[in-house]
Amino acid sequence: MTRLTRRSFIKTTSAGTIAASALSAPFVHAEGTSMTARMVTTWPRNFPALGTGAQRVADRITTMTNGRISIKVFAAGELVPPFEAFDVVSSGSAEMYHGAEYYWQGKNKAFNFFSTVPLGFTAKELQAWVYFGGGQQLWDELSDQYHIKAFLCGNTGVQMGGWFRNPIKSLDDMKGLKMRMPGLGGEVLRKLGASAVALPGSEIFPALQAGTIDATEWVGPYNDMAFGFHKILKNYMYPGFHETGVSLSLGLNKDWFQSLSEVDQKIIETVCSSENDIMLAEYNTRNGDALKKMIREDNINLIKMPDDVFNEIAKLSAEVVAEVAESGEIEKRVYESYTQFRNQVIRWTNTSDYAYLNARKIALGI
Amino acid sequence: MTRLTRRSFIKTTSAGTIAASALSAPFVHAEGTSMTARMVTTWPRNFPALGTGAQRVADRITTMTNGRISIKVFAAGELVPPFEAFDVVSSGSAEMYHGAEYYWQGKNKAFNFFSTVPLGFTAKELQAWVYFGGGQQLWDELSDQYHIKAFLCGNTGVQMGGWFRNPIKSLDDMKGLKMRMPGLGGEVLRKLGASAVALPGSEIFPALQAGTIDATEWVGPYNDMAFGFHKILKNYMYPGFHETGVSLSLGLNKDWFQSLSEVDQKIIETVCSSENDIMLAEYNTRNGDALKKMIREDNINLIKMPDDVFNEIAKLSAEVVAEVAESGEIEKRVYESYTQFRNQVIRWTNTSDYAYLNARKIALGI
Repeated sequence: MTRLTRRSFIKTTSAGTIAASALSAPFVHAEGTSMTARMVTTWPRNFPALGTGAQRVADRITTMTNGRISIKVFAAGELVPPFEAFDVVSSGSAEMYHGAEYYWQGKNKAFNFFSTVPLGFTAKELQAWVYFGGGQQLWDELSDQYHIKAFLCGNTGVQMGGWFRNPIKSLDDMKGLKMRMPGLGGEVLRKLGASAVALPGSEIFPALQAGTIDATEWVGPYNDMAFGFHKILKNYMYPGFHETGVSLSLGLNKDWFQSLSEVDQKIIETVCSSENDIMLAEYNTRNGDALKKMIREDNINLIKMPDDVFNEIAKLSAEVVAEVAESGEIEKRVYESYTQFRNQVIRWTNTSDYAYLNARKIALGI
Repeated sequence: MTRLTRRSFIKTTSAGTIAASALSAPFVHAEGTSMTARMVTTWPRNFPALGTGAQRVADRITTMTNGRISIKVFAAGELVPPFEAFDVVSSGSAEMYHGAEYYWQGKNKAFNFFSTVPLGFTAKELQAWVYFGGGQQLWDELSDQYHIKAFLCGNTGVQMGGWFRNPIKSLDDMKGLKMRMPGLGGEVLRKLGASAVALPGSEIFPALQAGTIDATEWVGPYNDMAFGFHKILKNYMYPGFHETGVSLSLGLNKDWFQSLSEVDQKIIETVCSSENDIMLAEYNTRNGDALKKMIREDNINLIKMPDDVFNEIAKLSAEVVAEVAESGEIEKRVYESYTQFRNQVIRWTNTSDYAYLNARKIALGI
């Protein structure tokens, strides 16, 4: 991998391919000039909340820099396949990606911790760790190896457990399942005797139709309805053990990011942080709408994962997450920082959010 | 109240009083020129998370506008007393306030809904309603009557129930209590036979020392320890029924805000949204630290509010919140929008956050 130190506002042809001539100029740009920067994403174009969130981030940066940085968004597959987004930003062939860090776990398993791990943080616990618990420093150290600077940039909240042909009543029901699930959650499934497949979102529905998978998770009611899984599978289980507050991230080619003024760097950082706020609000609104509709109109069975099944899955999750620490030195430090912070923040979450939600549920009977 | 249409970057003397000469020039400012804007706050200077959050908002706006808007922060009492922050922004004597909307309930009780109401939204439910459920439009309509444009700008998360001389074991224990509690929570206390007092934060500790109040709530472990309540009262109860995800807000003089460029307006809006993300992360980190310290070192009794007490308080809370709807036409519309959204979002919260936190608590035994 060559480290890019050249001008990166590379012109794209109408077909979306990179014009070779664009790799000629240095990264320095004069104050007040405009540049176009490319954001490759792992989402279908304008996919609800994920793709539209990436577009919102691009639009805000363009507006707030008064056009000094004009961002063009590429959907998955338009410039590169979704899981290659990391590589093209690392090499400088694109300025930034919007995706989820666990998609890069083939590079280093420590990336999982900055999106989600099984039985992990909620959105707000993750944000606390990254901003105030030492998480960002470790992430910077990890991303730096790939010439990338990354920020949290949107969150889905707690995801659903997934869609199944038959309700999961015991661990035996997981054996032999062919289920779409990326990241470490997939490794937990394998320990349970299931086959886990990591497919990009757009490939899930065709795989269900073709019967190459027979169960899937994706995000939650809003996004899952958009893909139409409810047309094939009727049992929708909750809560997910595997994606408990998935953060999306904006990863920027580090040389390009460092070539920006302090003003523009702070604008990008702040837009990312703002997207954590906005995207989660969007999910909580739209998931509520979709949940109501799917139960009333689509004849979906909404089923709570039995406690004993969840408890067994939790034990295996702890094993899978702990195994990451054995993969290498930085993996170990990220795991230890994460675990230490989790043990402390859980006590506060249980005293605040959990205690309130529990008391409210009892009091209102909803 | 006169509506300000004049240049508002009013010079202040060293004593913090407003120089009359500053009210002369019009609000229009040339592209590229710099202005100083004043942020009055309801917090002690650099008070943890609240005051430092206001300062962070000011600094980010100053940086991201490249100094086009340079914001000077005034602590409570420096320019005006804390609860007069709204009036000076309404009249244009200051450009913006950072505070909590329930402090303005004397103007209109509908303001409560944009900070918190008893048995109300969590932080993320409030953000969902304001951004995607019609809340911002109603808030704009309400604030517009006072020539103000306001944004959500920081959140404390679920607050603690408060500090008591003796643990609350039944509703009888609330009778006759003199307790600090602002907003609608205070009205619930009155229905319980307690006296509720709305004191600014800085006046709570002296009032406890003087015995003019014998119980108080403020925020949570991090902030409460900063004020030292644990030196006087040893029983700390949770969860709070009255402040279940308190939003702070940035309110801007509307004429001043509209005089800004689209770029600077979007910067201010985005910095506010970002502060929702950052401040909550700060609270969740620091409250976890403080909770651990207070239990280990300060001999505090951390006590869960009994379910039957909470249930009774919840009933009275519903009455108090519903009474707001009877105060006027806009109060009714805000109440109805809030209630309708709550009934829908609660089902999603219970399926996602609550279901996960509950399952995690059982699985990990923490």
